[in-house]
Amino acid sequence: MAFSFEVVKSAGKARAGVFHTPHGDIPTPVFAPVGTVATVKAVPPRDLHEMGASLILSNTYHLHLRPSSELVRDLGGLHRFMAWDGPILTDSGGFQVFSLAKINKIDDEGVTFASHIDGSRHRFTPEVSMQIQENLGADIIMAFDQCPTPKDRRVVETAVRRTSAWAARCREAHADDSCQALFCIQQGGIYEDLRAESSAFITTLDCPGYAVGGLAVGESKPEMYATLDYCVPMLPEEKPRYLMGVGAPDDLAHGVLRGIDIFDCVLPTRLARHGAVFTPDGQVNIGRALFQRDERPLQEDCDCYTCQTFSRAYLRHLVKAGELLAHNLLSVHNLRFLIRHMETMRNAILQGTLEDYTASFLERYMHLAKKE
Amino acid sequence: MAFSFEVVKSAGKARAGVFHTPHGDIPTPVFAPVGTVATVKAVPPRDLHEMGASLILSNTYHLHLRPSSELVRDLGGLHRFMAWDGPILTDSGGFQVFSLAKINKIDDEGVTFASHIDGSRHRFTPEVSMQIQENLGADIIMAFDQCPTPKDRRVVETAVRRTSAWAARCREAHADDSCQALFCIQQGGIYEDLRAESSAFITTLDCPGYAVGGLAVGESKPEMYATLDYCVPMLPEEKPRYLMGVGAPDDLAHGVLRGIDIFDCVLPTRLARHGAVFTPDGQVNIGRALFQRDERPLQEDCDCYTCQTFSRAYLRHLVKAGELLAHNLLSVHNLRFLIRHMETMRNAILQGTLEDYTASFLERYMHLAKKE
Repeated sequence: MAFSFEVVKSAGKARAGVFHTPHGDIPTPVFAPVGTVATVKAVPPRDLHEMGASLILSNTYHLHLRPSSELVRDLGGLHRFMAWDGPILTDSGGFQVFSLAKINKIDDEGVTFASHIDGSRHRFTPEVSMQIQENLGADIIMAFDQCPTPKDRRVVETAVRRTSAWAARCREAHADDSCQALFCIQQGGIYEDLRAESSAFITTLDCPGYAVGGLAVGESKPEMYATLDYCVPMLPEEKPRYLMGVGAPDDLAHGVLRGIDIFDCVLPTRLARHGAVFTPDGQVNIGRALFQRDERPLQEDCDCYTCQTFSRAYLRHLVKAGELLAHNLLSVHNLRFLIRHMETMRNAILQGTLEDYTASFLERYMHLAKKE
Repeated sequence: MAFSFEVVKSAGKARAGVFHTPHGDIPTPVFAPVGTVATVKAVPPRDLHEMGASLILSNTYHLHLRPSSELVRDLGGLHRFMAWDGPILTDSGGFQVFSLAKINKIDDEGVTFASHIDGSRHRFTPEVSMQIQENLGADIIMAFDQCPTPKDRRVVETAVRRTSAWAARCREAHADDSCQALFCIQQGGIYEDLRAESSAFITTLDCPGYAVGGLAVGESKPEMYATLDYCVPMLPEEKPRYLMGVGAPDDLAHGVLRGIDIFDCVLPTRLARHGAVFTPDGQVNIGRALFQRDERPLQEDCDCYTCQTFSRAYLRHLVKAGELLAHNLLSVHNLRFLIRHMETMRNAILQGTLEDYTASFLERYMHLAKKE
């Protein structure tokens, strides 16, 4: 088996595991930095290795439009193209088609849309998404799904049924998981019966892993956590479970407690480009005047290059001056913050201290948020 | 002596030397990357160490305006602020005041100008420039000068006399070179008698090094080389000679042949941000369609991280997609190209092969330029 998942230890619903892939082992729970167009913005692969990244995500929709999956395939696939020799996950393009592109037509067969770059016309179907992702050659590939906003029940119902039908077609187009593992996606918004219907179908497809889609797309945090309470146990215990597009430090903690193994999000790199950083005391904008003469690192006990090397005063200066180096240095810190957060939760599961750790992490992290 | 220069070997006018500073030895000839506001744009200090940078330059004018030299001083000086523990050179602010700022008033006393950032009013005098540079704490500091465009003889005459008077005031304000070495600047445009007049005066100030200013500011390359032919030997042989603001690979070769030891320029990082790279066959725009499927590195025999890791096709993709990582990767290559160019010329001087090496480098590098 090229791909296999082992749960090393559990703590309630939370699990410390290892997902074995042809490009290396992924200790779980894991946070995957996002490299939309085959680059984690402003962060070279050697920085990703140094910060302990064990999985990165890249986007099918973006790579299809530019430079095209055929070009990436002809140049040896995504690993070689972007010089990342560790595991890679590609999404299906579904989420971006519905959120970024101008939709021309959506039907049970697929989606016709206009590129957000040049307006050119494209069509994605489950089979096209599989072909593109096979061209790209990521280790984990995702079934083509429809991701609705979670609150209009009739829209969610349609999306669930369409996602199921498309998942079956993806499984047929990609029946062999020996080189690339196909994960199918549970939809269902915040409706327990729809989550159950979605899970019941996709789990018949015998995938090496499953994802929870359609969260963090407009519902409140309590709604997301309540949904995770019931929707995660609907997915097989012996397979990795991936919560798509979630990356706030508090959400990662809540996700792990509810049995999620894999997360991804653009949040750490996007915040960095706006001068915002994660700290144990919450999110902070480093451009604020109070940091002007602050000689301390962003976070006293952080082991990232940025914290080991530079003061808050210097980083604030870079942000205020609009300097490119700020994007790299703040991204390195934010990514390392989330990766270490997952490492620490994993160790806490192994040592039986998860509940205490998570409670104290959340209390400290949410402290400022509560005050404001 | 905190600062001393030794010529290890000469070849004609060219010299292989070492400039000893409190922050380390600088083997010469040397190219210094420019970190205008205390950061080489998009390049962290560890990349600079890796590429063999032994001296970097930062700009007095920019740092005075933001974040201010007092702040840098209070935070432990420029080395600590930007986390670069090697030698640093700061310019005097003169060039930027005359090229970037809106001049309100210039007289023999100094220059009053408006900030290019917020229009705020400032005044630089030789004494102010010395104070700012002492606050910043670079190893090599520059005398405040007036750098005219080189062709209007009457303007150049005034600038030479003013530069001499200001150099004397800088020397008086900064009489002790034990922590920071003051270099005075020769002006004189393309007029041999004015260069001689300028040199005759500044060399009375017993500086640890001297600079050639007022070149690469509008004259032709043949005019610059012809000027260097006579103006460099006017400066003491036993002191390092610094050609300010010159960084094209062919100009570096011509400068070394004429006895220059130190160069700086924003060219390699600025070109990188526009997708242009140095190669032994000349300057190339990596965004061109012909590189779309080119699996080769930017330069086959280059030892930089970029060339050791990425294909032209990938770098072109980053440039076309407007990705931040392109700025880092292309800057790393361009800087390493110039630093290695200087290392190679230094070895050629030591081995007695300078003439052959330079001729073949220039023939190959200028080949495309000649064809176009």
